[in-house]
Amino acid sequence: MRATIMYKAGDVRIENVPDASIRNPTDALIRITRACICGSDLWPYRLKKPDGKGQGMGHEAIGVVEAIGKDVHAVKPGDVVVMPFAFSDGACEFCNEGLQTSCLHGGFFGGGEVGGAQAEALCIPQADGTLYALPVNEDDALMPSLLTLSDVMGTGHHAAVTARVSKGKRAAIVGDGAVGLCGVIAAKRLGAEQIILLGRHPDRIALAKQFGATDIVSERGDEAIARVQELTRGLGVHSVLECVGTDQSMATSMGIVRAGGAVGRVGVPHYEAIPEAKPMFYDNIMVSGGPAPVRAYIEELLPDVLEGRIEPGRVFDRTVGLDDVPDGYRAMDARESIKVMVKP
Amino acid sequence: MRATIMYKAGDVRIENVPDASIRNPTDALIRITRACICGSDLWPYRLKKPDGKGQGMGHEAIGVVEAIGKDVHAVKPGDVVVMPFAFSDGACEFCNEGLQTSCLHGGFFGGGEVGGAQAEALCIPQADGTLYALPVNEDDALMPSLLTLSDVMGTGHHAAVTARVSKGKRAAIVGDGAVGLCGVIAAKRLGAEQIILLGRHPDRIALAKQFGATDIVSERGDEAIARVQELTRGLGVHSVLECVGTDQSMATSMGIVRAGGAVGRVGVPHYEAIPEAKPMFYDNIMVSGGPAPVRAYIEELLPDVLEGRIEPGRVFDRTVGLDDVPDGYRAMDARESIKVMVKP
Repeated sequence: MRATIMYKAGDVRIENVPDASIRNPTDALIRITRACICGSDLWPYRLKKPDGKGQGMGHEAIGVVEAIGKDVHAVKPGDVVVMPFAFSDGACEFCNEGLQTSCLHGGFFGGGEVGGAQAEALCIPQADGTLYALPVNEDDALMPSLLTLSDVMGTGHHAAVTARVSKGKRAAIVGDGAVGLCGVIAAKRLGAEQIILLGRHPDRIALAKQFGATDIVSERGDEAIARVQELTRGLGVHSVLECVGTDQSMATSMGIVRAGGAVGRVGVPHYEAIPEAKPMFYDNIMVSGGPAPVRAYIEELLPDVLEGRIEPGRVFDRTVGLDDVPDGYRAMDARESIKVMVKP
Repeated sequence: MRATIMYKAGDVRIENVPDASIRNPTDALIRITRACICGSDLWPYRLKKPDGKGQGMGHEAIGVVEAIGKDVHAVKPGDVVVMPFAFSDGACEFCNEGLQTSCLHGGFFGGGEVGGAQAEALCIPQADGTLYALPVNEDDALMPSLLTLSDVMGTGHHAAVTARVSKGKRAAIVGDGAVGLCGVIAAKRLGAEQIILLGRHPDRIALAKQFGATDIVSERGDEAIARVQELTRGLGVHSVLECVGTDQSMATSMGIVRAGGAVGRVGVPHYEAIPEAKPMFYDNIMVSGGPAPVRAYIEELLPDVLEGRIEPGRVFDRTVGLDDVPDGYRAMDARESIKVMVKP
């Protein structure tokens, strides 16, 4: 079968690899019907050092179950399923607490033993705990929005939840990538009254406004902080959704959060420490977040997708076949595309 | 009147100063009947550089109202009142959210324009929002425990609340000072099943056990982390109450918190950044806390004190008059005393 393999920064190839197959009784084999390229895939695309072996890419997908191991009971062949970016057994104490990303028998797709989803097929470990069967057929018109439940919409929601967005409060979203845009949807959905997007790309800003952003801040650094303070009577926002993961985005986040407020981090951190530990203390600011347990959120978000109340699928502005996945990486890296959908 | 003034590290004096008096219509004048020396007073006692002027010390007290400004309505002369370590108007949006330490018209006792409570009397700004009238007389036997509502018990409770201690979960308290010991009380009160105290002073450990600590870890650094992991099946604790405020105590806290858990900081931070930002992210760990809005907690904690269900006043193991306050600082600094009560 064909799959996406990354060798080093800028070097993504579509290659023939051994067919995916059931290895353990708890596995399911799915044929990928939709996958996508994630903002977090751009980190290795920019930074990966060659190590002589390739890495299977992709951790977001919807597919059709082709085969199941003998211990799989929650899904059956023919089911259309969404695959969260982390696999999890659904039974350990972390899964029971709704933190499937810390599952005692779980892990992450793409890299290591587990393959990637930018491929024709994929073996899903811990299928019962991982997969969620959707009440749609594989060509449903809602497919783009359903696909975001595997990562970006759940991740934007996690940013909003960990930043404690609530009704009538002020929220800021740092970053205008697909996750940031889903963060706007999530903040609006949870009732934020003021929703400030920090971003500077016209196409993304336009979409953010349609999703419910009330203010746009295109400045950077100290100027961005000053602008948010202006927009919030000098107090800052109750909730910051940190959707980038750099030193600068974290410094901005700490500069715009209000006393008693929270920063929910979902941008994969490329920094070693949380800055401003003293002001953070004196202002009783909370820093939270991490990889989103999207599996826990599907149940809550799915009805809003099925009934059209939220349309996170609009973050996809380009669709490619497998052969064009490398060009999809290039386009996202060049900011020509917000998010690329893959139809293998 | 006499008051405690600190000039530089190790140099604390009892001096005659101008009598405290009403300055604004929202002020109340109280005669101090009980005050204390705080663990946080030891920071300037160890580090304060001479700057030519003295600093009024003390931010915890119970007193009797002697006079009120014309705009004070919530307390009246003769009332026995507890004074939280921060003053607050009780009316701004932060006070309404229960974060009185960030009051738009508030501040902290001791230092600056506002005097200290290790004195015969003190002028209380924003008396209506700040003071809490107690249903006892000034010599009530519960006075030591009531006095802790001005800081240490409320602060231990804040550590537990921000570390999200809840029923049946595991908690660890880093630090065996008076706040840490009150953290043990708070963790027990909120239903923690396992309560691990990290400390090494036999008198404090004995008290912690009486307050409900189930395990004691007297190792330090990596050995302390390993020991807590042993005690928690290798997973760590759901809640860490950080009651010290050093680099090392913070590193220990991050090393013993479980995935999905929380670190509640109440130790005044003497570090610039929160370490381990990446593991903290991948494990979805929350860091929270700050100066405790003790004014918000009095209502909740007072019944438990009045009915004897909690006895935080047991942290006081020495009582001094004003003249002996300097020796009280020395004794706490030398760890001869857990916490010193002052009867002016």
